Amino acid sequence: MTVEQKIRELHHFINGALVPGTSGRYSHVYNPCTGEVIARVPLATREEVRQAIESAKNAFPKWKSLSGGKRSEIVQRFRQLVKENQDELIEIICEESGKTRGDARGEIQRGLESVDLAINAPHMIKGEYSVNVGGEINMFSRKDPLGVVAAISPFNFPVMVPLAQTSMAVATGNAVILKPSEKVPISALYISKLWKEAGLPDGVWTVINGDKEAVDELLENEEVKAVHFVGSTRVAEYVYQTGTKFNKRVAALGGGKNFMIVMPDTDLDQAANAFIGAAYGAASQRCMALSGVIPVGKETGDKLVAILKDKIGKLKVGPYTDDETDFGPVISKESKEAILGYIERALDEGAKLVTDGRNPEIAKTSNGFYLGPTLLDEVKTDMEIFKEEVFGPVRIVVRADSLQEAIGIINSHELGNGVTIFTNNGAAARKFQDEIEVGMVGVNVPIPIPVGYHNFAGWKRSNFGTGVMFGPEQANFFTKRKTISEKWLAIGDETEAAFAFPSDGGSK
Amino acid sequence: MTVEQKIRELHHFINGALVPGTSGRYSHVYNPCTGEVIARVPLATREEVRQAIESAKNAFPKWKSLSGGKRSEIVQRFRQLVKENQDELIEIICEESGKTRGDARGEIQRGLESVDLAINAPHMIKGEYSVNVGGEINMFSRKDPLGVVAAISPFNFPVMVPLAQTSMAVATGNAVILKPSEKVPISALYISKLWKEAGLPDGVWTVINGDKEAVDELLENEEVKAVHFVGSTRVAEYVYQTGTKFNKRVAALGGGKNFMIVMPDTDLDQAANAFIGAAYGAASQRCMALSGVIPVGKETGDKLVAILKDKIGKLKVGPYTDDETDFGPVISKESKEAILGYIERALDEGAKLVTDGRNPEIAKTSNGFYLGPTLLDEVKTDMEIFKEEVFGPVRIVVRADSLQEAIGIINSHELGNGVTIFTNNGAAARKFQDEIEVGMVGVNVPIPIPVGYHNFAGWKRSNFGTGVMFGPEQANFFTKRKTISEKWLAIGDETEAAFAFPSDGGSK
Amino acid sequence: MTVEQKIRELHHFINGALVPGTSGRYSHVYNPCTGEVIARVPLATREEVRQAIESAKNAFPKWKSLSGGKRSEIVQRFRQLVKENQDELIEIICEESGKTRGDARGEIQRGLESVDLAINAPHMIKGEYSVNVGGEINMFSRKDPLGVVAAISPFNFPVMVPLAQTSMAVATGNAVILKPSEKVPISALYISKLWKEAGLPDGVWTVINGDKEAVDELLENEEVKAVHFVGSTRVAEYVYQTGTKFNKRVAALGGGKNFMIVMPDTDLDQAANAFIGAAYGAASQRCMALSGVIPVGKETGDKLVAILKDKIGKLKVGPYTDDETDFGPVISKESKEAILGYIERALDEGAKLVTDGRNPEIAKTSNGFYLGPTLLDEVKTDMEIFKEEVFGPVRIVVRADSLQEAIGIINSHELGNGVTIFTNNGAAARKFQDEIEVGMVGVNVPIPIPVGYHNFAGWKRSNFGTGVMFGPEQANFFTKRKTISEKWLAIGDETEAAFAFPSDGGSK
Amino acid sequence: MTVEQKIRELHHFINGALVPGTSGRYSHVYNPCTGEVIARVPLATREEVRQAIESAKNAFPKWKSLSGGKRSEIVQRFRQLVKENQDELIEIICEESGKTRGDARGEIQRGLESVDLAINAPHMIKGEYSVNVGGEINMFSRKDPLGVVAAISPFNFPVMVPLAQTSMAVATGNAVILKPSEKVPISALYISKLWKEAGLPDGVWTVINGDKEAVDELLENEEVKAVHFVGSTRVAEYVYQTGTKFNKRVAALGGGKNFMIVMPDTDLDQAANAFIGAAYGAASQRCMALSGVIPVGKETGDKLVAILKDKIGKLKVGPYTDDETDFGPVISKESKEAILGYIERALDEGAKLVTDGRNPEIAKTSNGFYLGPTLLDEVKTDMEIFKEEVFGPVRIVVRADSLQEAIGIINSHELGNGVTIFTNNGAAARKFQDEIEVGMVGVNVPIPIPVGYHNFAGWKRSNFGTGVMFGPEQANFFTKRKTISEKWLAIGDETEAAFAFPSDGGSK
Repeated sequence: MTVEQKIRELHHFINGALVPGTSGRYSHVYNPCTGEVIARVPLATREEVRQAIESAKNAFPKWKSLSGGKRSEIVQRFRQLVKENQDELIEIICEESGKTRGDARGEIQRGLESVDLAINAPHMIKGEYSVNVGGEINMFSRKDPLGVVAAISPFNFPVMVPLAQTSMAVATGNAVILKPSEKVPISALYISKLWKEAGLPDGVWTVINGDKEAVDELLENEEVKAVHFVGSTRVAEYVYQTGTKFNKRVAALGGGKNFMIVMPDTDLDQAANAFIGAAYGAASQRCMALSGVIPVGKETGDKLVAILKDKIGKLKVGPYTDDETDFGPVISKESKEAILGYIERALDEGAKLVTDGRNPEIAKTSNGFYLGPTLLDEVKTDMEIFKEEVFGPVRIVVRADSLQEAIGIINSHELGNGVTIFTNNGAAARKFQDEIEVGMVGVNVPIPIPVGYHNFAGWKRSNFGTGVMFGPEQANFFTKRKTISEKWLAIGDETEAAFAFPSDGGSK
Repeated sequence: MTVEQKIRELHHFINGALVPGTSGRYSHVYNPCTGEVIARVPLATREEVRQAIESAKNAFPKWKSLSGGKRSEIVQRFRQLVKENQDELIEIICEESGKTRGDARGEIQRGLESVDLAINAPHMIKGEYSVNVGGEINMFSRKDPLGVVAAISPFNFPVMVPLAQTSMAVATGNAVILKPSEKVPISALYISKLWKEAGLPDGVWTVINGDKEAVDELLENEEVKAVHFVGSTRVAEYVYQTGTKFNKRVAALGGGKNFMIVMPDTDLDQAANAFIGAAYGAASQRCMALSGVIPVGKETGDKLVAILKDKIGKLKVGPYTDDETDFGPVISKESKEAILGYIERALDEGAKLVTDGRNPEIAKTSNGFYLGPTLLDEVKTDMEIFKEEVFGPVRIVVRADSLQEAIGIINSHELGNGVTIFTNNGAAARKFQDEIEVGMVGVNVPIPIPVGYHNFAGWKRSNFGTGVMFGPEQANFFTKRKTISEKWLAIGDETEAAFAFPSDGGSK
Repeated sequence: MTVEQKIRELHHFINGALVPGTSGRYSHVYNPCTGEVIARVPLATREEVRQAIESAKNAFPKWKSLSGGKRSEIVQRFRQLVKENQDELIEIICEESGKTRGDARGEIQRGLESVDLAINAPHMIKGEYSVNVGGEINMFSRKDPLGVVAAISPFNFPVMVPLAQTSMAVATGNAVILKPSEKVPISALYISKLWKEAGLPDGVWTVINGDKEAVDELLENEEVKAVHFVGSTRVAEYVYQTGTKFNKRVAALGGGKNFMIVMPDTDLDQAANAFIGAAYGAASQRCMALSGVIPVGKETGDKLVAILKDKIGKLKVGPYTDDETDFGPVISKESKEAILGYIERALDEGAKLVTDGRNPEIAKTSNGFYLGPTLLDEVKTDMEIFKEEVFGPVRIVVRADSLQEAIGIINSHELGNGVTIFTNNGAAARKFQDEIEVGMVGVNVPIPIPVGYHNFAGWKRSNFGTGVMFGPEQANFFTKRKTISEKWLAIGDETEAAFAFPSDGGSK
Repeated sequence: MTVEQKIRELHHFINGALVPGTSGRYSHVYNPCTGEVIARVPLATREEVRQAIESAKNAFPKWKSLSGGKRSEIVQRFRQLVKENQDELIEIICEESGKTRGDARGEIQRGLESVDLAINAPHMIKGEYSVNVGGEINMFSRKDPLGVVAAISPFNFPVMVPLAQTSMAVATGNAVILKPSEKVPISALYISKLWKEAGLPDGVWTVINGDKEAVDELLENEEVKAVHFVGSTRVAEYVYQTGTKFNKRVAALGGGKNFMIVMPDTDLDQAANAFIGAAYGAASQRCMALSGVIPVGKETGDKLVAILKDKIGKLKVGPYTDDETDFGPVISKESKEAILGYIERALDEGAKLVTDGRNPEIAKTSNGFYLGPTLLDEVKTDMEIFKEEVFGPVRIVVRADSLQEAIGIINSHELGNGVTIFTNNGAAARKFQDEIEVGMVGVNVPIPIPVGYHNFAGWKRSNFGTGVMFGPEQANFFTKRKTISEKWLAIGDETEAAFAFPSDGGSK
């Protein structure tokens, strides 16, 4: 397939064309299932980023001035092309990220939900209209696109997150620059091809590959009016503080430490199944993955851990090419090593090993970055393994004696992305919803990710600013409001100067 | 009158009571019409601010947990009390700000529009509800108050701006700390009394007086979840960058340089009347005051300047106690001197004096901070007087040969608060609305301030972040969204672990 | 008190003044607690109604052309006046309806919720604004008041229902004609006085007293653009069919047969308390009163009936002047007799008497229309007492073996106003919400009446048309949308005739 | 092509299959360009309609219970299929309606706008969610589909109107029965094929062919919950009155008599071009076609008529197979004769013939139902030709001396669908927008049809009820609201019976 061949040496996508990098600096792209390098991606210089911004800036006025309907037509064609090329895109995702095909299919589907919402951008950016607010003045508002906007994406969803970040931005008339993770750039470039095929004018969609140097240019360049970031909390904070220092509009979504509370009235077998899928799926590399479980009561805890031990023991780690695989490798060698370090220190701090995934069978025959599923019991809130987001298949059990204590444990954490409770009791669910300091809350739903027409956003250090990863609120983030007060004077109307502050509609 | 007497030595308003300052540092409050000191206001220490924050934090949980209807009831009583005490409040405003009674009445009325909108806070913070987004999951969102939030207000609207900033914040369940301008703190303290009388629980409303030290504590203290600032662009930028550095939600609205374009088809007498009121009213100390006029075409310009010269000559500057006064003094001696400096430099740079307000008649007999109306013609875009916001009665004429040129002149300015065009031609108005890079736009409306149920916000360096001074968007600024995915499992349902990414509503 | 004296012979309220009736036909107004006539109310002729309509029509244009803000100001004053005169209004309500003071106070409070929402009418009737929907066309909509609109009210809420029906109608700029129940006209006339005092222009608010003759004129007169009815299902259907036959917009809300399902996991004492208040309060004369209870399971049923029997035995029926009274008399002698008939026939059909309220103690000493609380067990769905809405204190128990059966029983009824379930189980609540064919649904809430900022409306034969009794939807019912497509042509633009159907924004 | 062959003898489309008619009654389908019969369509019996309703009723529960996302997926596939089969659909439209290919293409495009909006049905039917409205009660609403709903379509837009009427109905979960015009049933059957191909479950989409007998069953059958009609005012009124008599929800949109006001400041050549296209396009058979022009002032009128005479003389009437054709024949022989009658009577009443289209050249060689463009000047408001909607290429000039008079002429008409003004003057446009009693208003836009994300609806006798032909309001028409009050009781909470009316959130 031609795309594949072209991208062995990957490019940027600027002004409607693949453009080779000029910096001489590169980053390797691996197949995590084999450990092999499959491509190298150029890391842009500031100057290259500036050129990309310039081409986006030039494309903006014409794109903005198209009617919303014409822009939507292109978004619809893009949606159709993603669907038609889904199988090819799945292979690309799997190869560069190591996730299973089912998982890749799921992420495309969820990503398309953001495209679906963007189809109705013209409806969503309507302003408001009032007749005669006073003094015969009609007052109305409109929402205009910002200009050049940037999105910076993480490695864990090579397609879903970029679509979530950018679809509404494109549809509302902005020129978008995407800087994908340098670990998974191939999917982003493939999407670029589809946008072009859908008829998007050159320059409206840009992919610039790079590292901190590219990011800094995006954050500092005054032509970039908004920055939308999804990634780790550490970098999200940097992006928020730096972007706002340059007076930009910034959405910066960080990591999560997401817990499941299991109440004593729950069917533990069901709860265990829900936990395992949500905890270890995608090798736990999701910001909404369940990080741990908090059973309420000793009996509940003991039973649940026993069930989990049994079920986790049957999980199959392997490559996406094997249909039996439950989850694949982690993204890199460095990541694998870091995860092993977390496990060691947790054990040192007193955590108890329920299942040990440090040396999975497949690691003996493959150079892929594999880790099996590890579960640690008796984790306490002062341990590192509790405090840190761990992007790999080591999950924890924290014991609590009451719902109140369980809520307290979760609220003590600095992150607040996702959380869930398993119970059949309405009162417990209500109390939990009210008191939990977390942005996305599940009740008997293991991964409470909103659908595309609701808003995705965490609380506390999981989200800097007021932005969302996707959802209707994107239409506000990517537009600015203009409010117009309109009056028409008949020639000859008598007036005189009004010095007092106008208190009925902007005029006497 | 008892309030007056108490506040000669002014206090803070903390936890439902007037509290004396402890810093030993004070700022003088003047009557600008006489130049006399009428009170002194304590400047809070960081420790005092921390105590105020602590009392607000303690009041928050109970206030938040009241039903929206009960909070609204208190807001309605407050509204009624402001109305009933309007005349007294007008005198306070006039004495500390120097503005005319009509102007003060107007600002109260406009401030109440924000209270009116806040009455319907329960309607405005509704979340969204979806049935069966997939997998039998119902998904819904709610908007929760943030906690302790701060508002920092300017001197030019002692009542309107604080009400605009805080009404929705209170009504949505936050605990609000207002730091008013140290030049006009008496109005804010008076409002505090009314809130208490309306039944607002102690600690929900706080007034802390102070300067940069107090501001910095508000910006840095982690218990303050959001900061809402209205003032100069310079300070707005500082507040935005500092507040966001501490990961806060920040709205920071700055100054304006607001122009009126006069098209040749306009009735110039009407346009001149509109300009004069909007330009010199309140001694030009409004962020939406007209700063200058751009007549299109030499003939239009010459005629308009002649008419303005004649009309401006008849304006009366004086104290608010004189009912004939068109506008009063500027806020301070320093301000008066700064304005005189702007005029000198403008003349040095080549501007032409149309009317000279530097030595008004009243200044010969009064120590008030009076300046008459100055108009400068032939101002160019490279002069200081064009570039800087001047908060005093010196206004400018910039000449243009076409609508396109006039739009270009305005768009070249770094500020983008308000703007207006006077014309009878629909096509001219449409072009202007489309192309002008300004947030609030008038068509034959001299001061296009939105009514309270539309959003007030400028563009460019007139507004940092995405906040508004008032309007429906306040309901979003002062709340955070929680999204819940709810499912109820019948005991015994068969499930198994789902590893693929959930693509229909958060679960298999 | 002057109002009282004037209204012994009651009047209409037309064009801002009390106007005597001319028909010579009257209806008596009783004090249900004593059985005495307290006033007589004139029944309008068609000609009188036409004159009222004419005065409303004349008042409309000026009221419509006021700014929304000015209309809101009057609504706020009205709200304040109702609050200030609340105690007096409570006495009026109690005297003409027989309900308790606490109940009257509650209905005023709930009625004010509709006034609260109407304060924000300007916000709620905003249209939508779109820039460049194609061909340089801006498209926007506005919502205009309809003109003369009529409300027809029932006797059971002399204040709340009229306020619910009319507040948004007034606030959005319509001229409103209220025809109150001829049994409780005094409250409506009192409200008229307050509207006038609040500054509402003459003719905008009219009260016309009458019977079917007046109603028919309102339904047929072409100047009445919309009719809003609340009352019995029989009349609601007549109003809907007749009003629509005259091409009007009609909202017609009818009666209810509202059940409470009690699940076995419920605390039966709590459930019994909830039932009794919601079932017998106001002598069961509420369209949202609980008509019956459906315990699930024999054991639940037997226990619940025993508890109810005990508790109902302690209820106190009496006049509102006695603070110990739980509920008062029914509205009229005819009503009392009808209710006794229902009980007789129910017993004939096999229902079992749990408590017998047919001869309450107080009836021995008072001529008031008193009935004690009757509870009938073992009621079946084919009995009259199940099928008919009974507006009096006879309530029923229907037994079911499962939640599914209970839902089926309720869905088999032709009415669908309110319903509730008592359970602690989330799954049961979810199933119930999903499957029940009723408009207003409670979960552990005995009377699930929405608050004023949500919409009140039943399903099936409880509501004809798509109207609501109150809530945000009223803003749509009382306005009509105008959609404007605006383009401005520069002189000299070249065009040619476009014959194909315009497919991008209404024009080539 | 296979569809064509199958449908020579046309069928109904019931339960996912083409089903032959059984009544023995048929109506002919013509090619209006040739006058030849191209098919015959069965006219359903009441029993056949009942069977169709039954199959729809059976399909409803499963369709309703699908997640919104899954329904949207099918809508998107349908949209794609319409696009892919556009050329074939254009030929079908042209052959059975006689309109030009450009016109057919335009109507498909506009029809797809309704499908686009329906893609976001899940977003548009969100309910509202409130936390703690009082008494710890959370209150929320949902919008549920109605069940079986019917749409009845006119002949003039064989595709656009059915898509406008039904797309949101399908997407929100209803089972839809379309009764297309018996003159153009082939397009509707073709659409049915595409819905099936898109994956719509059998029974969710039905086409029943028929005449008044079928319509009456749809109006009377209690399983049909809503009826959506677009057609003539006479039938719309019948549908509204009959459907509501059976207590249904009814939208009934009728005809228009749409005028263009031409102000003296307008470029008359531009105005004439705009008028001619909008007036004679599609042989004037559009409910939004311009029926007449009202020039303001004698000079404007004389000049405009002269220009129109010249331009109309050049128009080409002919078959759609000729690319030069400006517009085609009218729909039927009966229609042609009726139109000729209107012209005769107008001339009798004193109208003056500007251009005479009664005997177009093509009528000499073709049996198609051709009429050339006729323009009548000096039409008065008391003539039949002014009062009646004429669905054919005879248009009128009504003279006025002022804008006020022109507005009065239009407002005197019983219809109020569309209207437009041509002027460059903002004040004239504002006055016109305010005072005109018409639902869809243009300013320099000849046919002010809203785009699909705005609402299409006329006023007065152009629209019975509150429905729209398309637009966001469809989401409300095709759903009913359920409001839920939810509280969770902790076991053991103390309560007692509350008899007073609940005044804070539905409970004490």
